Amino acid sequence: MTAERATPYLRVDVDRLHANVARAAEAAAAAGVALRPHAKTHKSADIARLQLDAGAAGLTVATVGEAEAFAAAGVTDLFVAYPLWLTTALAGRLRSLASSGVRLAIGVDSVGGARAAAALLAGSGTEVVIEVDSGHHRSGVEPTAAGDVALAAGDLAVRGVFTFPGHSYSPGARAAAARDEGVALAVASEAVRAAGLDVEVVSGGSTPSLEHADTTVLTELRPGVYVFNDAQQWELGSATPEQVALTAVATVVSHAGGRAVLDAGSKVLGADRAPYASGSGRLLDHPDARIVQLSEHHAVAEVPGRLPALGSRVLVVPNHCCTAVNLADELWPTTGDDPWPVTARGRNG
Amino acid sequence: MTAERATPYLRVDVDRLHANVARAAEAAAAAGVALRPHAKTHKSADIARLQLDAGAAGLTVATVGEAEAFAAAGVTDLFVAYPLWLTTALAGRLRSLASSGVRLAIGVDSVGGARAAAALLAGSGTEVVIEVDSGHHRSGVEPTAAGDVALAAGDLAVRGVFTFPGHSYSPGARAAAARDEGVALAVASEAVRAAGLDVEVVSGGSTPSLEHADTTVLTELRPGVYVFNDAQQWELGSATPEQVALTAVATVVSHAGGRAVLDAGSKVLGADRAPYASGSGRLLDHPDARIVQLSEHHAVAEVPGRLPALGSRVLVVPNHCCTAVNLADELWPTTGDDPWPVTARGRNG
Repeated sequence: MTAERATPYLRVDVDRLHANVARAAEAAAAAGVALRPHAKTHKSADIARLQLDAGAAGLTVATVGEAEAFAAAGVTDLFVAYPLWLTTALAGRLRSLASSGVRLAIGVDSVGGARAAAALLAGSGTEVVIEVDSGHHRSGVEPTAAGDVALAAGDLAVRGVFTFPGHSYSPGARAAAARDEGVALAVASEAVRAAGLDVEVVSGGSTPSLEHADTTVLTELRPGVYVFNDAQQWELGSATPEQVALTAVATVVSHAGGRAVLDAGSKVLGADRAPYASGSGRLLDHPDARIVQLSEHHAVAEVPGRLPALGSRVLVVPNHCCTAVNLADELWPTTGDDPWPVTARGRNG
Repeated sequence: MTAERATPYLRVDVDRLHANVARAAEAAAAAGVALRPHAKTHKSADIARLQLDAGAAGLTVATVGEAEAFAAAGVTDLFVAYPLWLTTALAGRLRSLASSGVRLAIGVDSVGGARAAAALLAGSGTEVVIEVDSGHHRSGVEPTAAGDVALAAGDLAVRGVFTFPGHSYSPGARAAAARDEGVALAVASEAVRAAGLDVEVVSGGSTPSLEHADTTVLTELRPGVYVFNDAQQWELGSATPEQVALTAVATVVSHAGGRAVLDAGSKVLGADRAPYASGSGRLLDHPDARIVQLSEHHAVAEVPGRLPALGSRVLVVPNHCCTAVNLADELWPTTGDDPWPVTARGRNG
């Protein structure tokens, strides 16, 4: 790695990135389902282009701001997979996107939300997708209620149903979460059809559940993390360390207390630490090491055996790549000397 | 609050900010010690100016990038309170700062680090301050070893000793951490003097330990969080909810599962959740509510009694204001219509 660039910074292993993009694209094609990657993970127009070139049907985003950033970068098919509560201002921004030629859909998860969308987006061409809860218990209606929400969307076209099986983020839960996902989406699809509406798209997917997704029910997958992977996927068993494409390059600044103190803290790695995580991040080339203490500018790593030397550099695997990327303005690819801008950084609203 | 600005965004209650700045300045003045606020909390040239106008001796920063950002904003006295491991490139940036007229000091916490600084910063006018561990067990040498590190700094002027009593971040630990801080700094000062060097500055301080600091030993305090406060300080008892000056304005987007789902997630609030935290953030106007689930764009709050209405806005108190601010490009003050830029956002290296 370049010795001269100041640490800490985020490094993208381009060979691994390409392999991750290709593997998911091939798996979706083999299963006969569409891949609509969640771009909140990378927020990068460069990486979106790789995904679309590999056959992605469009992108998933979490916010209208992200949709605007990717539309400005030339992406023409965007799904805001979030139960937006529309205001006049937010609806105006969506109308602008739709009228600029973007094929656009948004999530709704309540009768009230669907009515607000119907009132504010009529005639814009924006479609809605009904979010259902498949067991993660975050947002989403009960699957049996999907028909009521769909009817409340009035004149807006209902594209279908979606869920995020986020309870796949737990040891041993990946296959079961995928089963829950399939059942919930089947029930929701039936509820929408029973209300007299068509269901074109049945959309699910998270990176941990991806390989177990029931593609007899689902027509679309929306994983995000798979492009980079991270310590969470490593520890859940949904990625190997060799598939980790994003790391933070950090310098060992201290050996205080017989540990390696690194200059990549929570303002670089993010502070995510799931209950199952073995630490606050991993070291790619020291698989037995653990980050046992994390503050804004210090990651304190216990490293069995010989400590990496003072002043040396290590590759830190963040627990959660999505939040690490959102902290950075640039990603540094291993190919070429120019950074990739984090195009949609901070576009939360 | 303004109904038209898209949520989520960070809001600064300017009256509370002014009161927080004044209270700490007055307490330091009354105790006869210097206040050198840690600017990593706010990263804002506007707020730095308030602190300096209230009598701060200079600013503390965590990185050379932050020092550069504040120097560019006109701050002339900066202490990088971090055990920098100097490279030629980093030393060159420090030399540029020092030669531009900034009074500059950096931390060192090892003989090797001090030697590297001596070799690379000779003649620059940069001073060093020896970091000691007072019980937080992050970086810092043992206090008795401070003299050895000071001698290794060679021709560089040694300003004194410093510590961060971060073990104050635990329920009931504030006063004890401040006692540890005073003892460690007294021992370290004696060790430096025994090595034949003067000790001009004895520097400590964290917001939780601030009111307990032993000002018979310390000559300088470096709190950061006190300008804003946050849910951590609220729960540790070092701030009241009425002293919280920074909140995230969020919209209630869903009532899924009988809870309030808010559009300010970990990409706005940060994911910090200390072992003692009662949740992933608090609601300023609903003190009995707790954020029980946090993902990138969803904060799921359990709110006793009547849920805030769909589409309504609430003020979320982040657990840790420093990481929340570093996620934002702008802070929105309650006075005036223009945002304050987060001048040093993302300046991690």
